[in-house]
Amino acid sequence: MTPQPNPKAGAAVKAADRAHVFHSWSAQELIDPLAVAGAEGSSFWDYDGKRYLDLTSGLVYTNIGYQHPKVVAAIQEQAARMTTFAPAFAIEARSEAARLIAERTPGDLDKIFFTNGGADAVEHAVRMARLHTGRPKVLSAYRSYHGGTQQAINITGDPRRWASDSGSAGVVHFWAPFLYRSRFYAETEEQECARALEHLETTIAFEGPSTVAAIVLETIPGTAGIMVPPAGYLAGVREICDKYGIVFVLDEVMAGFGRTGEWFAADLFGVVPDLMTFAKGVNSGYVPLGGVAISGRIAETFAKRPYPGGLTYSGHPLACAAAVATINVMAEEGVVEHAARLGSDVLGPALRDLAERHPSVGDVRGVGMFWALELVKDRETREPLVPYNATGQDNAPMAAFAAAAKAHGVWPFVNMNRTHVVPPCNVSEAELKEALTALDAALSVADEYTA
Amino acid sequence: MTPQPNPKAGAAVKAADRAHVFHSWSAQELIDPLAVAGAEGSSFWDYDGKRYLDLTSGLVYTNIGYQHPKVVAAIQEQAARMTTFAPAFAIEARSEAARLIAERTPGDLDKIFFTNGGADAVEHAVRMARLHTGRPKVLSAYRSYHGGTQQAINITGDPRRWASDSGSAGVVHFWAPFLYRSRFYAETEEQECARALEHLETTIAFEGPSTVAAIVLETIPGTAGIMVPPAGYLAGVREICDKYGIVFVLDEVMAGFGRTGEWFAADLFGVVPDLMTFAKGVNSGYVPLGGVAISGRIAETFAKRPYPGGLTYSGHPLACAAAVATINVMAEEGVVEHAARLGSDVLGPALRDLAERHPSVGDVRGVGMFWALELVKDRETREPLVPYNATGQDNAPMAAFAAAAKAHGVWPFVNMNRTHVVPPCNVSEAELKEALTALDAALSVADEYTA
Repeated sequence: MTPQPNPKAGAAVKAADRAHVFHSWSAQELIDPLAVAGAEGSSFWDYDGKRYLDLTSGLVYTNIGYQHPKVVAAIQEQAARMTTFAPAFAIEARSEAARLIAERTPGDLDKIFFTNGGADAVEHAVRMARLHTGRPKVLSAYRSYHGGTQQAINITGDPRRWASDSGSAGVVHFWAPFLYRSRFYAETEEQECARALEHLETTIAFEGPSTVAAIVLETIPGTAGIMVPPAGYLAGVREICDKYGIVFVLDEVMAGFGRTGEWFAADLFGVVPDLMTFAKGVNSGYVPLGGVAISGRIAETFAKRPYPGGLTYSGHPLACAAAVATINVMAEEGVVEHAARLGSDVLGPALRDLAERHPSVGDVRGVGMFWALELVKDRETREPLVPYNATGQDNAPMAAFAAAAKAHGVWPFVNMNRTHVVPPCNVSEAELKEALTALDAALSVADEYTA
Repeated sequence: MTPQPNPKAGAAVKAADRAHVFHSWSAQELIDPLAVAGAEGSSFWDYDGKRYLDLTSGLVYTNIGYQHPKVVAAIQEQAARMTTFAPAFAIEARSEAARLIAERTPGDLDKIFFTNGGADAVEHAVRMARLHTGRPKVLSAYRSYHGGTQQAINITGDPRRWASDSGSAGVVHFWAPFLYRSRFYAETEEQECARALEHLETTIAFEGPSTVAAIVLETIPGTAGIMVPPAGYLAGVREICDKYGIVFVLDEVMAGFGRTGEWFAADLFGVVPDLMTFAKGVNSGYVPLGGVAISGRIAETFAKRPYPGGLTYSGHPLACAAAVATINVMAEEGVVEHAARLGSDVLGPALRDLAERHPSVGDVRGVGMFWALELVKDRETREPLVPYNATGQDNAPMAAFAAAAKAHGVWPFVNMNRTHVVPPCNVSEAELKEALTALDAALSVADEYTA
């Protein structure tokens, strides 16, 4: 589809937006939202007809790209049959989505509680863990993001929680492994892994194992920096959880459904949590949907005793039909395998090559279609290109990088001193190469800010 | 559309549901969800071809009934154009939905923050109030429901919060007016109103006005019992809020968008809150959507300072397109006026007539398509037909009532000792009369349990 310029329509959309839409995470008068006219596959375009290759997959959720015709058709068909129905009933699309998800989740995570998105999935997983154990505390990592509602944001480790953080309310933050910025003075992945597990177990010992309901971790932390955990870490956490009767919650809202080149990132590590949250990729966000996959042991807790939680749109038929179609498309078109191959054979090597040529790149890490470049002032000291949580002028180097990427036709994902390369999982090799050329140019701009 | 029996398909749907779907608010092995094959207008049918007139509007959300052809077409069209796009952009359906909602909200509630549903709308409204005032506490009513996520459920007054209630965390519950079961020993609506306001203001005095961020009220409490507040109560709360600099939040998730025969229940009382939450009726739940309508004063707080909250699907294009179509349909077809007229001329008088003839009916209250019958053992003592929060055998009288209604082809809304009559706002007069005949029969069953 060729974008047709229509600046007048764009101006009207923008005017109504500025008059009436209150935007997420923003100072409303300091933002200037781009009016987007259309989107298809891995690209979108504005009302001037300018096209961008989307290296963000929205907010890392359009894993099958925009407007996949089979999923669009499935939504249209379900809309004609049954757009919505209340959660207390058995509905075909709901049953089928649950079945297809349970078929793919690791281990015995065979019961699916549907929510509207990732945040409420995390809220309910935490409630299940607290009620299952009868314990109050949740341990989560400083470098993490788990959602925007009150419980989810308090578990979150990134600065977005600060404004809503009135101090510990049953949440304890610990440090997960991250060799590039080790909190454990480690020099190897093995050392980082062993020390991170020791740190976690000691923290539990001092918090009191009998007070800890759950450990909540993103399998691979996403917005916080795509830190692939070292081999053995998640298995070690699993052991610690078993030892102390703690519920292990893996948050796969961002990492799940193909992003890492596996159906779930947990599969990369052969680990089975007790609860697993999902959203985003489950139906590429075509219709809002999230959920919790529940192990047999925890489902058993709520077999005869009511689970005290719910929501009007739990298992929404239109959202579930989109999930059914998305999962089937991903399976039929080999999207997961494509993401794995393109990650290991094309994107990973190319990003490492960029890192060699650009002094602003301090670290490259990732897997599948889930990569981060950490930009630094100085490779030796690893000083970030911009300070933690920088705004305004302090953030100028990253703003310049982002502007350069956009000028080269690529919409980049930027968070603090990092750019993430997280295109749709079915992006083509040719598109990826186009994106890499644009990133190459934008990194030259970032290089100007290095020491 | 005539329901075609297909019990085999129904059995398959049911089997997959039982194997894989974890249901809201339920002991998973003690429920037996009906498999629903289809729905249209005010009715739905199971796989045996049995049709039910839906007196619940799902969970009081399908205000335009099931499968309205214009809204279905709008969803299909938007799916073809742009199913989804990230929240930081200006998108036509998003802008237009915000504009149409802002056009209808009372006063200067002109900025719309979109969420996925009612619970997260309440979560964000509370956050906005806390940050706007810099104060920690939220006051809400004991007889209320505000959503299933942690912050929303703690504000909730009904027993569903108990399992997740670890004591006050900035939430204080007070008593709102409810003459039929007055906490204030009042004998008239005027007395109830005056005493309820005095109770609220005294509670604030003892909590410390400078600690109270918000008062959160359902304009007309919904699931808690459809208690239409006496004239002057909400205006009195507005005055108290102004006097102490407290943010007034009206929760219109259930009462909004036509349910009461006005676009918003606040319009019945001429009151303008500072924040108003909505969901459900905004698009009849055809696609998950909720939000907060924000006054100019509170929007100003976040003009230059970022609002620290958000979600991936904020302003989801498909959900917003469904809202645009729903609002336009409601306007074009006079759905709001229809609900008002049918409520005052048909449903209200008919329910009062049932009350006269059935000793089990202790109270009838409501407006528009939003009515409750309070069932009692004894009209004099007003002892509820079943105890507060009854389960199992204790709940047998209400279970018998519900079974009788279903046997007569009506799906009733039942909560504790009440049945709510909350059909779609565009239900026909003929359908209503059919429902009233069935209720008449079911109430005869309830009568058997009276003293």
